[in-house]
Amino acid sequence: MRGIAFELLAVDGAARCGRFETGHGVVETPAFMPVGTRGSVKALGPDDLAASGAQIVLANTYHLLVRPGHELIRELGGLHAFMGWDGPILTDSGGFQVFSLSKIRTLDEAGVTFRSPVDGSTHTLTPERAIDVQHALGADIIHPLDECLAYPATREATERSLALTLRWARRSQVAHAAAPSAAALFGIVQGGAWEDLRERAVDETVALGFDGYAIGGMAVGEPKPLMYALTATVAARLPAHQPRYLMGVGKPEDLVEAVSRGVDLFDCVLPTRNARNGQCFTADGALVIKQARYASDGRPLQEDCGCYACRQFSRAYLRHLFMSGELLAFRLLSLHNVYFFQRLMADLRSAIADARLGPFKARFFDRYPVTSAVALDVESETEA
Amino acid sequence: MRGIAFELLAVDGAARCGRFETGHGVVETPAFMPVGTRGSVKALGPDDLAASGAQIVLANTYHLLVRPGHELIRELGGLHAFMGWDGPILTDSGGFQVFSLSKIRTLDEAGVTFRSPVDGSTHTLTPERAIDVQHALGADIIHPLDECLAYPATREATERSLALTLRWARRSQVAHAAAPSAAALFGIVQGGAWEDLRERAVDETVALGFDGYAIGGMAVGEPKPLMYALTATVAARLPAHQPRYLMGVGKPEDLVEAVSRGVDLFDCVLPTRNARNGQCFTADGALVIKQARYASDGRPLQEDCGCYACRQFSRAYLRHLFMSGELLAFRLLSLHNVYFFQRLMADLRSAIADARLGPFKARFFDRYPVTSAVALDVESETEA
Repeated sequence: MRGIAFELLAVDGAARCGRFETGHGVVETPAFMPVGTRGSVKALGPDDLAASGAQIVLANTYHLLVRPGHELIRELGGLHAFMGWDGPILTDSGGFQVFSLSKIRTLDEAGVTFRSPVDGSTHTLTPERAIDVQHALGADIIHPLDECLAYPATREATERSLALTLRWARRSQVAHAAAPSAAALFGIVQGGAWEDLRERAVDETVALGFDGYAIGGMAVGEPKPLMYALTATVAARLPAHQPRYLMGVGKPEDLVEAVSRGVDLFDCVLPTRNARNGQCFTADGALVIKQARYASDGRPLQEDCGCYACRQFSRAYLRHLFMSGELLAFRLLSLHNVYFFQRLMADLRSAIADARLGPFKARFFDRYPVTSAVALDVESETEA
Repeated sequence: MRGIAFELLAVDGAARCGRFETGHGVVETPAFMPVGTRGSVKALGPDDLAASGAQIVLANTYHLLVRPGHELIRELGGLHAFMGWDGPILTDSGGFQVFSLSKIRTLDEAGVTFRSPVDGSTHTLTPERAIDVQHALGADIIHPLDECLAYPATREATERSLALTLRWARRSQVAHAAAPSAAALFGIVQGGAWEDLRERAVDETVALGFDGYAIGGMAVGEPKPLMYALTATVAARLPAHQPRYLMGVGKPEDLVEAVSRGVDLFDCVLPTRNARNGQCFTADGALVIKQARYASDGRPLQEDCGCYACRQFSRAYLRHLFMSGELLAFRLLSLHNVYFFQRLMADLRSAIADARLGPFKARFFDRYPVTSAVALDVESETEA
């Protein structure tokens, strides 16, 4: 099988629920992908991921390219075997991290040359090479090299960047078509903060024809209402019969809002990164485990949560682990947070299937406090 | 049930295999206890511990006393509930750590006063209080406060210390008898590096009458042949129908040697601490995962190991995790090492049951390189 068989099961307003098939299994949408930056979702094993309900994980091409190297992973049978995860894997193209994490030496029509922050070595990423690296990893869904601008950027820079991204997209398609890979190739819609550029990006990317469409360049510092508006514009214009992936988003409220606007797929480091800082997601908002009020609290993190951390341990114990620097704290809090995100997606899927997304959203926002009006900053898309 | 029902199932020379029952389940002996210093076996969950084959864990009274405090744990239903482990738990008395980790303010007939390294607060541990703390924790096997001298100590100091330990042992018995606890109380045999003092310690401790006997003050810096010889002397003199526990020991070769000399129970931080340093135990000796030769090694840590780390991951992946500072490395390497220790004990039990300990030992030492002739230093008994 090449590509992805996306099936739309129900719609509720702009929101959709569906499923797609990959060579490594089915993903129900809307879906959230935990981020396995370096081939490991931080602090969690594949057993934990499966227990969280995650059906697909993301891995960062850039991080695996600089260490341990894609050729090593190819030699060892690909990323699924390497990281012990036999479910679907999506990889980004590495572009986002090149621009946000590396010292760039050159960026031109050909591609980008950068220095590895691990050992200072020089790497070149061209559209063709980004595809080859992702083929070596053996991901089920891969992406073309793109340029992702930070917010704000001038209109001129954004237009120039969009044009480059589109030319690179075409080269990526050619490179992918020439290889025996069974992966699905998603196109990435850029266009910055201008609605008309976003529309142009959709039209020209869709004209090229991909297996699905990622919405890039969001959650890079823009105001949240703008992110929601642009997401709605882009999603509405994308083909209904293909999956839509909003890259690097986001907070629970962002997932609910973006699903309502027609997005099917998400990734974010938030659940695992916040866990390592002791911040737990609950239906009532953040619970900061180091607070003294939890010192003798015998309740689980969230009363009705079915994750291992909540079934087995009290807030008092989790706080004790965290305050003592016990490594188990990171696993348990990460597990809880990833479970929370997975459950939210499952609840959204049910709500859409039953055409009750409106009441679900109302109930969700009734309990869940929205704390910030600014979209996540660029850091949120990777875990350096 | 109060105490412990120890059943001797087979002997092979001085070695024994058996089983004992606690209020939280059965332990097959010889047994190795992973160390849950602060109520967590570092980097492992109770699920991992169960999967490793561990039947009983040790927790350090001292560490739990200074944080989060035994009264909190009592209030939350005891240590089993607190740490989510429903199997047997053994606690030490806290004495060893008071002497090795705290700034001691006073040591007299009454007990010992020390400063907490966590917050500088002052704590007093008397024999009566050490028992009460362990009752609060709700451990299945508890110990009297004792004084543990480092090696070398003068004969005079050792005699004086032994006498104090024996008086404290008697007071501990009285305190334990007066409480409704169902825990088994083990006596601790001290006596330092003198064979006759060890014999005196055995006789006087056994005369007091305990549910089992711990051999303390070993692996505190003495030469290994001396440790083995003293262990043999003490074990041979202890009652055959009760379990014998060699505290804080040790390396795989020490377990084999001590089991051969009649010891039933062990604990040591070695498997978990070494895992965090990237050192893995295998039947062929230590494997240091960060070595470059494992960078593209697709084999598991040990070919015939059944642990999750070996079933699911290659040396190359584990090295990648370790070199990248991924938290999952600590869990997987700890799991492997604890599993290795548990499997060694299971193999020893089978060998004794089949009266083939001699050939087993020969085969073990044929493969396993013994690297040091010095017993573990004091640090090995705790994980600060």
